Amino acid sequence: MAYRQLKEELVLDYIKNLELMQKRFSSFDHISINEVGDGNLNYVYIVTNKLNPEETVILKQAVPYLRVVGESWPLDIERMEFEVMALRQEYEFCPRMVPEIYFADSEMSLVIMQNLNKHTIMRGEMNKGKKFPKMPDHISTFLARMLFKSSDWGMAGKTDKWPYHDSAEKKKMVKKFINKDLCNLTEKFIFSYPLCDSDTNSYTTGLTKEDLAEIQEDNELKVKAALLKYKFMNNAEVLLHGDLHTGSIMVNEEETYVIDPEFAFYGPAGFDVGLLLGNMFLAYIAHSYRQVELGNDPYEYRKWVLEAIEEIWDGFSLKYDKLWQEKESEDNYPMWDYPGGKEAFRMLRDAEILRIFREAVGIAGSVMIRRTLGLAKVSDIAEIEDTEIRSSLDRLALKTGKQFILKADSLNSIQEVLSIAKEISPLI
Amino acid sequence: MAYRQLKEELVLDYIKNLELMQKRFSSFDHISINEVGDGNLNYVYIVTNKLNPEETVILKQAVPYLRVVGESWPLDIERMEFEVMALRQEYEFCPRMVPEIYFADSEMSLVIMQNLNKHTIMRGEMNKGKKFPKMPDHISTFLARMLFKSSDWGMAGKTDKWPYHDSAEKKKMVKKFINKDLCNLTEKFIFSYPLCDSDTNSYTTGLTKEDLAEIQEDNELKVKAALLKYKFMNNAEVLLHGDLHTGSIMVNEEETYVIDPEFAFYGPAGFDVGLLLGNMFLAYIAHSYRQVELGNDPYEYRKWVLEAIEEIWDGFSLKYDKLWQEKESEDNYPMWDYPGGKEAFRMLRDAEILRIFREAVGIAGSVMIRRTLGLAKVSDIAEIEDTEIRSSLDRLALKTGKQFILKADSLNSIQEVLSIAKEISPLI
Repeated sequence: MAYRQLKEELVLDYIKNLELMQKRFSSFDHISINEVGDGNLNYVYIVTNKLNPEETVILKQAVPYLRVVGESWPLDIERMEFEVMALRQEYEFCPRMVPEIYFADSEMSLVIMQNLNKHTIMRGEMNKGKKFPKMPDHISTFLARMLFKSSDWGMAGKTDKWPYHDSAEKKKMVKKFINKDLCNLTEKFIFSYPLCDSDTNSYTTGLTKEDLAEIQEDNELKVKAALLKYKFMNNAEVLLHGDLHTGSIMVNEEETYVIDPEFAFYGPAGFDVGLLLGNMFLAYIAHSYRQVELGNDPYEYRKWVLEAIEEIWDGFSLKYDKLWQEKESEDNYPMWDYPGGKEAFRMLRDAEILRIFREAVGIAGSVMIRRTLGLAKVSDIAEIEDTEIRSSLDRLALKTGKQFILKADSLNSIQEVLSIAKEISPLI
Repeated sequence: MAYRQLKEELVLDYIKNLELMQKRFSSFDHISINEVGDGNLNYVYIVTNKLNPEETVILKQAVPYLRVVGESWPLDIERMEFEVMALRQEYEFCPRMVPEIYFADSEMSLVIMQNLNKHTIMRGEMNKGKKFPKMPDHISTFLARMLFKSSDWGMAGKTDKWPYHDSAEKKKMVKKFINKDLCNLTEKFIFSYPLCDSDTNSYTTGLTKEDLAEIQEDNELKVKAALLKYKFMNNAEVLLHGDLHTGSIMVNEEETYVIDPEFAFYGPAGFDVGLLLGNMFLAYIAHSYRQVELGNDPYEYRKWVLEAIEEIWDGFSLKYDKLWQEKESEDNYPMWDYPGGKEAFRMLRDAEILRIFREAVGIAGSVMIRRTLGLAKVSDIAEIEDTEIRSSLDRLALKTGKQFILKADSLNSIQEVLSIAKEISPLI
């Protein structure tokens, strides 16, 4: 069907006419439709049969512009294709960790999928002080599987016999996931604008010229940030979610789902990990105040946030390493078949995991800066009303982000990263 | 026209029927046709009007298999598309440094182009001890323009106004140049087989088990080589020639042309530079004997080879840096507009050039090893008849290549690279 924007009043009509939806819904007489998009990019409707709330789907449609800015910033609606392709690939690698797709209409640039109605967005729940003890284990599994299985390490052929390619399938994936519009957003809104004097930037009035100069006029930081951007633009290593912050994760006590992969593309292996850790560190900073507001001693919740960060990294690196060893044991390639070869293979894995770690720390820093000076905020800090408190938290976020970027290449363990954060915003 | 292999007797027929060729040739009555392909991949015919030798073209056709191996190694004939696309792009960036295309037929997987009949393949001329004093300047210009102008640094938009993308054009290029078949050859024949016990390897009988183990069982070397391969497979930075050895360069006293870019793809910036330098170092090693054979004291020619290497690198890095500064001065992006920003921009350029340098040194090492242990040899050494001499030169090539790979990441200047080569094979 040719593209037209499905205003709320047209959603029911559209759904009704789909055979697949006629099977899913016992009746369309008492349907509720609620728009729940976060307002940045797309329209997202929850469609539910009020008589049987288990009959429920999400309908998500892209509009041909950046919703948060308006029609003056056109965006190709083909981006929904990327979300659909990515969800399908993620579903293959990590079933039951991403919503199931029921129906996709590429001309309409829309997708109908599983409504995760027993789950809530993690960021909002964390803002309220909720802990999710199983999340680090789940999310580190998601990261390890995605990052390993989509890489050349994970996709190399079992056999070397022609015409089997070691790398052809992965190269086809890279080609399919060239996602220029949404990568362009990341390049600008994470890696460029917040690092210089751009009128798209926006920040708490309490931040001073000096605070800005600490970021935008620090030569070492600027160079490292430019190189992180360059890596983002060039290193087509793994299929990334591309926007894996705590608002892209839906949780309950038992399950963790990753949603909204429209930014998916082949990029540097540290990116998703770094995005997530950066957002967790922002929560750590926010809760020095949020917990007080909730009437608690901040220590306990903030300690949990740091433990979760540690558990995510440790879980990821162990699982990634294990997947690689399993892959190698299925392989018949003689690269490591010699006395001492096992040790070399271990050295290679260690080197790669360290590289991903350092990349992730740099990205975590970039994200903390971007969420403080750039256009898109995180509610963790931005929804704190007191300007003075907000700007003091902003300052901690900037300082921590800066140190992450400056020190990333010399760090060797997640404990060192936690120490930097605790030095700037003590865990007391 | 549907694909059929143009055997020699059919070439004239094909040419005759092309309107463009009817304009180029005054008559087809006295045409000579000579097959001159190097035998690895394609058939290459020189077509000349014997009555007027200025009326001459090259016709190059791909066959659907790896010619050097035979029909048992099928290769997609689409590879000629890559050669044509690459030649056109190179011609845009570096006119008069690549042959001009007269006609391309993608279904027939063939191209008709300028016959560089006043030029000869540089490798053969170097084997005879000829110097090409202008070549380093020419080839460093070619490298600087290609590597800078095809990169994100060189292709970033002048304006930030929507819908102008900083990176969209470059991403389209990456997509267009996903060259899986020929990248697969490089991945296997440069980065995999020579580093392990593969029956595609072939080497001088004089090399011992210990010589092989020095390469194939050295843990540090193996890990570094694996990481170089991974970079080759993942870092889609610049449009590479992909096979820039001294046999892909045609020269005379005044001009330098680069031919045969069918391996072209978007890869790591150090690759072409490293390939060329590795081949020059092989010539340096070969001439410790070749010059004696030619009746000369080896010192002078080998000194020229080292000077040429130095001049290529210095020329490249200076020109690359200059292109970047020019680009930046045309830009209106405020990234470096602050007190001290110029210095940061210089730091960034220095960091990038150093990174390219180190990558190139690692690649040079890989190439020296591959040309010694792998399937495809270089005539510089391989055509020396005396097995004992050949294996002693092979050993020098392996040692030098190994040290390049091991030390690449700690080197800072081309002089240090020359010192390694001279330490292993003294310039006396």
